Amino acid sequence: MKISTVKGTNDYLPKEAALRDYLMDEILKTYQSCGFQRIMTPVIEDIENLDKSEGGENLNLIFKVLKRGDKLEKALEAKNEKELCDMGLRYDLTLPLSRYYANNRDKLLSPFKCIQIDRVYRAERPQKGRLREFYQCDIDIIGTYSLTAEVELIATTAQALKNIGIGDFRVKINNRKLLKAILLKAGFQAEELDSVCISIDKLDKVGLDGVKEELNAKGFEAESINKLSEVLSTKPFTLEEAERLCPEEESVKEIRFILDSVKAFNGEFDVVYDITLIRGQGYYTGTVFEVESTKFRGAIAGGGRYDNLIGKFLNETVPAVGFSIGFERIFGILTDVGFQIPDRKKQIAVLYEEKDFIPAMEYARGLRENHNVAMYVKPKKTGKFIDKLQEQGCDGFYIYGQSGEIQFL
Amino acid sequence: MKISTVKGTNDYLPKEAALRDYLMDEILKTYQSCGFQRIMTPVIEDIENLDKSEGGENLNLIFKVLKRGDKLEKALEAKNEKELCDMGLRYDLTLPLSRYYANNRDKLLSPFKCIQIDRVYRAERPQKGRLREFYQCDIDIIGTYSLTAEVELIATTAQALKNIGIGDFRVKINNRKLLKAILLKAGFQAEELDSVCISIDKLDKVGLDGVKEELNAKGFEAESINKLSEVLSTKPFTLEEAERLCPEEESVKEIRFILDSVKAFNGEFDVVYDITLIRGQGYYTGTVFEVESTKFRGAIAGGGRYDNLIGKFLNETVPAVGFSIGFERIFGILTDVGFQIPDRKKQIAVLYEEKDFIPAMEYARGLRENHNVAMYVKPKKTGKFIDKLQEQGCDGFYIYGQSGEIQFL
Repeated sequence: MKISTVKGTNDYLPKEAALRDYLMDEILKTYQSCGFQRIMTPVIEDIENLDKSEGGENLNLIFKVLKRGDKLEKALEAKNEKELCDMGLRYDLTLPLSRYYANNRDKLLSPFKCIQIDRVYRAERPQKGRLREFYQCDIDIIGTYSLTAEVELIATTAQALKNIGIGDFRVKINNRKLLKAILLKAGFQAEELDSVCISIDKLDKVGLDGVKEELNAKGFEAESINKLSEVLSTKPFTLEEAERLCPEEESVKEIRFILDSVKAFNGEFDVVYDITLIRGQGYYTGTVFEVESTKFRGAIAGGGRYDNLIGKFLNETVPAVGFSIGFERIFGILTDVGFQIPDRKKQIAVLYEEKDFIPAMEYARGLRENHNVAMYVKPKKTGKFIDKLQEQGCDGFYIYGQSGEIQFL
Repeated sequence: MKISTVKGTNDYLPKEAALRDYLMDEILKTYQSCGFQRIMTPVIEDIENLDKSEGGENLNLIFKVLKRGDKLEKALEAKNEKELCDMGLRYDLTLPLSRYYANNRDKLLSPFKCIQIDRVYRAERPQKGRLREFYQCDIDIIGTYSLTAEVELIATTAQALKNIGIGDFRVKINNRKLLKAILLKAGFQAEELDSVCISIDKLDKVGLDGVKEELNAKGFEAESINKLSEVLSTKPFTLEEAERLCPEEESVKEIRFILDSVKAFNGEFDVVYDITLIRGQGYYTGTVFEVESTKFRGAIAGGGRYDNLIGKFLNETVPAVGFSIGFERIFGILTDVGFQIPDRKKQIAVLYEEKDFIPAMEYARGLRENHNVAMYVKPKKTGKFIDKLQEQGCDGFYIYGQSGEIQFL
């Protein structure tokens, strides 16, 4: 039998698990303090729901669950690949939330402010920092077009990042509607925009020349590419520039409201308009945002407004906006810097001779009011064992019938 | 798109999720106070590991994950059902733990005392109280044959049940070795024992006559069935009776040690020997135990010793014993009795006029030091909205610019 985990998944050692628990707990408590309520949804989801969800390239990364029994036999006979599966593992928490809201809306407040901290799955090609099973920590506000929702999500996410010790970051904002307006002004056609955005999204990796090259290869008009290139090489391309280009565009005001509001109550982090911010999901309709660590490379949170996704489950449009902390990235950063959990309960080991088991149990029970207490039969090589205990994060030990008091390490 | 969850899985409303979080947290804290360390393992596991794991009838209930890309195409061509899948969703936490221990043993203490609180999956026919996605809360002690491990597991599980308010229960103990010895004495053959046990396991449902009928139908010898029937109709069939039948059997002493030790430190719950306790899994080798609620029907926790499972991953035998709380059963019981979470943080709603958004945010921030505070634009029908807030568990509200202080509900 195979002792390693399946590709792209991890076993977590006790110290790692403790850090993960600490982080999830801190994030949850912060989200709750800001008035969001936790909900829980299943990991497995109807395959059709997943397939029709406009999840962008994530749709190619769905783990599918084989049918069972008679249904499987029929599908095998029909030799139809599509027929083989009836469920899949969710690739994000936004699609399940949309289904959840449609399923339970009568029992929920409106606007509904909710938390999901849970696992998602993507059949990515495994590589450093890219897992097939990983956690996301989402907050969403459902049922309002008000931009105060965006502001609350930014404030809450920022507070959570601060509380877990990821202090240095900035928030980048863009708006799908404004980006589209600018691209149309540059001369691209409406049906070309998705493809253009996919190329712009690679700016960080391939540079402006790389983006231009790709757009050329895709056969777009040279004039449009040049106009876009002009925009992308304006640094900084401010919201005022965007407004000058598209003076009639309402979404400029949306971005401005968000920037101004966040600045009004916050003196701790930067919040900026960034025309190059894309975010891959097809379901975003307005604001998109991302948090970038200024100390560590890359995005640590992201999200956006998806006003049409829930409507796919209902006969009416329900606006929604969400923000997700990239848990694994945060966990990776804090592990790399050797982060220590603050105010951790003390771990004490009680060592005993086998004959003293019952009284040693009684003694340990008393200690448990204030400490986490593990019992071990006293091994012959006690010193070596205690070294190993310390290595595992043990804070002190007590040898039953021998120690006067706990020996702290 | 479908708005309901897939069969046998649940959406949890905010109040339900809060209770689930509370219970998992209390169980985790109790386990930790008793010196167990949490670990985390993936939900998806290699299909061969699952198939070879001696999980009894659970092996028929595995959700299988379809291969992807070239490998899937090859499998489809070969039309080989077995080839279609490379992974499955775990059906319990014991198999992943065994793999985990084999994979990480050099980095772990010995004996290793660990916690898993996590999801498992079984393709059961959905019915009340039987889910396809559910949680288990396991503790295990790996690396010792000492029966103190069994005693510690019982003590810790009992403490957890007490701490979450499921106070009235009793612990039943049996031992696979003793049961086998008794069945052999009755005249059954070694290779018949598994089948006999499957019939005995139905005693609760079909009664003694039903069991006898089934054993007859299976073609076992009438004399053996009669002798077994005599044993099963002795009430109570005490450990002393068992010892009289099998005086040479060491496992009698094992059970006696566990009973005596638990009684020595505990005056709160009963612990009894029960010859009819089977537990389905094929991997158990010695002690098996179960906790039965005396107030609510059925088992609320179970487990046993599995000294040979980890050896399947390694070239040596590693003893192990585990105990698992049936989380969904507990959640069901406490939901049914209307259990209220003690010492819950107060939930406050701040209602504001849209123009006051920024100062209302500042005000809410101040309240968040002690409360969970949600912000809502003040709706026209404020009274109705407040009723709905209260229904959702809100403890008080504050109307910004109007209330003098928080109005508690």
